[in-house]
Amino acid sequence: MRLPEGLTTPALLVDIAALEGNIARMQEAAAAGGFALRPHAKAHKCLQIARRQLRAGAQGLTVATLAEAEVFADAGCEDLFVATPMWVDEAKGRRLRRLAEHAALRLAVDSAEGARRLGQELGSAAGAVEVLVEVDCGIRRTGVAPSGAGRLAREARAAGLPVVGAFTFPGHGYAHDPGARERAARDEERVLGEAVRSLRDAGVESPVVSGGSTPTAGAWRPGIVNELRPGVYVFNDATQQAIGTCSVGDLALAAAATVISVPAPDRFVLDVGSKVLGADRSPWVAGRGFLPQYPDAVITGLWEHHAVVRPARGNEAPAPGTVLAVVPNHVCTAVNLADELLVVRDGVPVDRWPVAARGANS
Amino acid sequence: MRLPEGLTTPALLVDIAALEGNIARMQEAAAAGGFALRPHAKAHKCLQIARRQLRAGAQGLTVATLAEAEVFADAGCEDLFVATPMWVDEAKGRRLRRLAEHAALRLAVDSAEGARRLGQELGSAAGAVEVLVEVDCGIRRTGVAPSGAGRLAREARAAGLPVVGAFTFPGHGYAHDPGARERAARDEERVLGEAVRSLRDAGVESPVVSGGSTPTAGAWRPGIVNELRPGVYVFNDATQQAIGTCSVGDLALAAAATVISVPAPDRFVLDVGSKVLGADRSPWVAGRGFLPQYPDAVITGLWEHHAVVRPARGNEAPAPGTVLAVVPNHVCTAVNLADELLVVRDGVPVDRWPVAARGANS
Repeated sequence: MRLPEGLTTPALLVDIAALEGNIARMQEAAAAGGFALRPHAKAHKCLQIARRQLRAGAQGLTVATLAEAEVFADAGCEDLFVATPMWVDEAKGRRLRRLAEHAALRLAVDSAEGARRLGQELGSAAGAVEVLVEVDCGIRRTGVAPSGAGRLAREARAAGLPVVGAFTFPGHGYAHDPGARERAARDEERVLGEAVRSLRDAGVESPVVSGGSTPTAGAWRPGIVNELRPGVYVFNDATQQAIGTCSVGDLALAAAATVISVPAPDRFVLDVGSKVLGADRSPWVAGRGFLPQYPDAVITGLWEHHAVVRPARGNEAPAPGTVLAVVPNHVCTAVNLADELLVVRDGVPVDRWPVAARGANS
Repeated sequence: MRLPEGLTTPALLVDIAALEGNIARMQEAAAAGGFALRPHAKAHKCLQIARRQLRAGAQGLTVATLAEAEVFADAGCEDLFVATPMWVDEAKGRRLRRLAEHAALRLAVDSAEGARRLGQELGSAAGAVEVLVEVDCGIRRTGVAPSGAGRLAREARAAGLPVVGAFTFPGHGYAHDPGARERAARDEERVLGEAVRSLRDAGVESPVVSGGSTPTAGAWRPGIVNELRPGVYVFNDATQQAIGTCSVGDLALAAAATVISVPAPDRFVLDVGSKVLGADRSPWVAGRGFLPQYPDAVITGLWEHHAVVRPARGNEAPAPGTVLAVVPNHVCTAVNLADELLVVRDGVPVDRWPVAARGANS
């Protein structure tokens, strides 16, 4: 990413050419396999990016929370899947009923209790939403075993919820070994296949079979899955670069940071920390972020407002005042810390995009 | 912390009685040793809390960034120390000059280049600020060696900056062993003593000798240090509780989260993740946060919107819909994710405090 002159740092920047390339390539990959693409908007939280994804051919958006769904629906993105089972209190029930009036809303269930609660709160609006059963394909987070999908679907139906299929998240596809990413994609296919059979045995058809993630994108093959929900790919990050699912040129988001101190020849300090980059560690990245201009340097320490960097052996530290790009380990948490993203084309600022769904956690 | 009924989760809550106790005790500890207290406001970023600290006797505030200083100065907290060396671009120069007009401003330097740049940008306003030389007492982040303090002070003076002393941060005092915390406090005292001698040899007196942190608070002894800058103590967090510098009753900030899923007897999942708690790992906490109602449970996985919890052996998982308190590993990054804090007294909501300096990174 070429950085503009005269920036006040730290600031989060988007390289719009890289972003547009990432959006186009993922849409092509989905179309080539006959998949509907429903990108996860948690990764960017920006209306300007959601609209680009939809214009490129995405069928709708995935979001993580009801609050995110509200932000995107209010802006006219009205085909939304909230891909986390929620516990619907009375306030969320009111918000869901209001949202279902003007958005095509798909919701997740992974327990009978959650489904009953959801059905109860939706009341007569239950018929206006669609529900997917979450199954676990290996990450042991939420989701039922695929053999339990049918029973849960019957319980959801009994609660008034229209079940239209199943979904999973192959989070174990984060791996440096392409074979491991391939196996995660096959796990997903196998587990969703079992879920669809379990649903059919319970009398429930599955027009929607949803999976996918950025790391497994290269392993998509036509099969039972018909919808994919990658998120990180719009920007990519140090983790994707380290596991090899993107090149340095595909990194579309970075913090601009200034060298504030060179206390010793073996380290320099940047004015960026966990309050800009997020504190995510990555098992695949040598340090706490990636410096494209110093690809072999390691961010050995990340404080709230300091990144301590060890230059590669034989490299001199840059002088105080030097501005560098720092790519976060995990783009989703970095974006969620910023009020806006500075949009850059060929090193020139061209726009500012509000992070409209920043902090939309509930 | 007693949680109110009928909360929409996730939400960040402050127990005001615990907060007030923490503020009073730290002020007493500082007063007992004859120290000025200048609490680090990065930990709370709230005007309501800053005012309580100042009313209790704090002499001013510490902040991490120019943007934080602006937020607190605009609200009438006008004695501010920005405890990070900054690289002052033209825009920051303008902002600093404006701020120096109505606030007592203390700034940090740790390099000749940074000092020259600061002096140049401040211009005739340089005489209106005070400058402290940062020395490193063991964490190897920013800061010069104490023997270099005098030379740097001369360079800062040559750049027009009034140097009034030295400061350090004993970050290596984060330790479970009270002896290690004690040693970090002695390191700080020794290193600042060397710095003050180096400054004196260079003809610079040091009315301000500033150190301190929450973990080393129990090890403060009258000596050369005359000002302390703890931050985390207002709320405490899972790290402080784990290293033994606070009790469970002193935990004044927690996320309220709801059990959304119990996929297996050995785990349950809460609707809170790194976008609410922050992603900080702590070498002293068994997992990714602390559950006061389930003190032996471990948060084994933290995703953006999911906390996966393993109950203690023999304990049953709580039912879906149960609301629990989750104390973050590091309170500073958690607070920075929230737009507001819900203030609770005896389990009853009494106020909402905006996180006024949230995202104030530049």
